[in-house]
Amino acid sequence: MTPRASASPPAIDDIFRALSDPTRRDVVERLSAGQASVSDLAAPYRMALPSFVAHLRVLEGCGLVTSHKRGRVRTYSLAPQQLKFAEDWLGRQRKLWEARLDRLDAYLLKLKEEKPQ
Amino acid sequence: MTPRASASPPAIDDIFRALSDPTRRDVVERLSAGQASVSDLAAPYRMALPSFVAHLRVLEGCGLVTSHKRGRVRTYSLAPQQLKFAEDWLGRQRKLWEARLDRLDAYLLKLKEEKPQ
Repeated sequence: MTPRASASPPAIDDIFRALSDPTRRDVVERLSAGQASVSDLAAPYRMALPSFVAHLRVLEGCGLVTSHKRGRVRTYSLAPQQLKFAEDWLGRQRKLWEARLDRLDAYLLKLKEEKPQ
Repeated sequence: MTPRASASPPAIDDIFRALSDPTRRDVVERLSAGQASVSDLAAPYRMALPSFVAHLRVLEGCGLVTSHKRGRVRTYSLAPQQLKFAEDWLGRQRKLWEARLDRLDAYLLKLKEEKPQ
C-alpha cells in the first residue's frame, strides 16, 4: 500500500499548527472583529515586539491573515478562507461520524422491530 | 493590561497541534467511519509501529480518540466532542467575520441611499 499521509495538503498542517498557539488564536479572534495595526494587536501582550511579530508571520505564512503597509503602519486583516478550510475539514469528520451513528440507530431499531419482547 | 493568551484553554492548543500532522489527521478521518484496531490503523503507513503508536498517544492525550483493550487487541474510536470543540471555535470566528461584512454591506447601502447619483 502507498503511504496515505501524503494525500493531505501541507497547507492544512500549517493552519492547524498556527492555531495551536493561544496568542495566535487570540489574534485571529481579534481580527474577526476587524482589521488592526501591529501596535494595536501587540498592546495586550507581555511579549517583546519581535516575538509578537513572529506570531503574525506564522499566521500570514499559512494564509490565515493578510497585511498591507501604508506609510510606517502595517495593518493586518483576517483572511477567512483558510479558517473555513479547517472548519470544513472538521465538519466532514463530524458528519461522517454522525452518519455512522444514524446507521447504527437504524440497525438497532430494525433489530428491536424484528424481535419484539 | 493582563496578558490575553492565558484565557484560552490548553486543551484546544493540544487539539490543533494534534491535527497539524497528516498521519494523525488521516487516523481521525479513518476513525470517523468506525472503530479500528492498532494493527488495522497502522497497516497503510510506511512507519515503525512505535512511531505510529506515538501518534495514537498524541490523539488520545488530547481526547480526540479513546481506546479499549480486549485480550491483546487495542481498539481505537473517535471521540467527536473535541472535534466539535475545535470546529465550533473556527465557526465562531467565521460568524464574527461574516457579521462584520454584513454590517459593512448595510453601511455601504445606507451611504448609497443617502447620496443617490
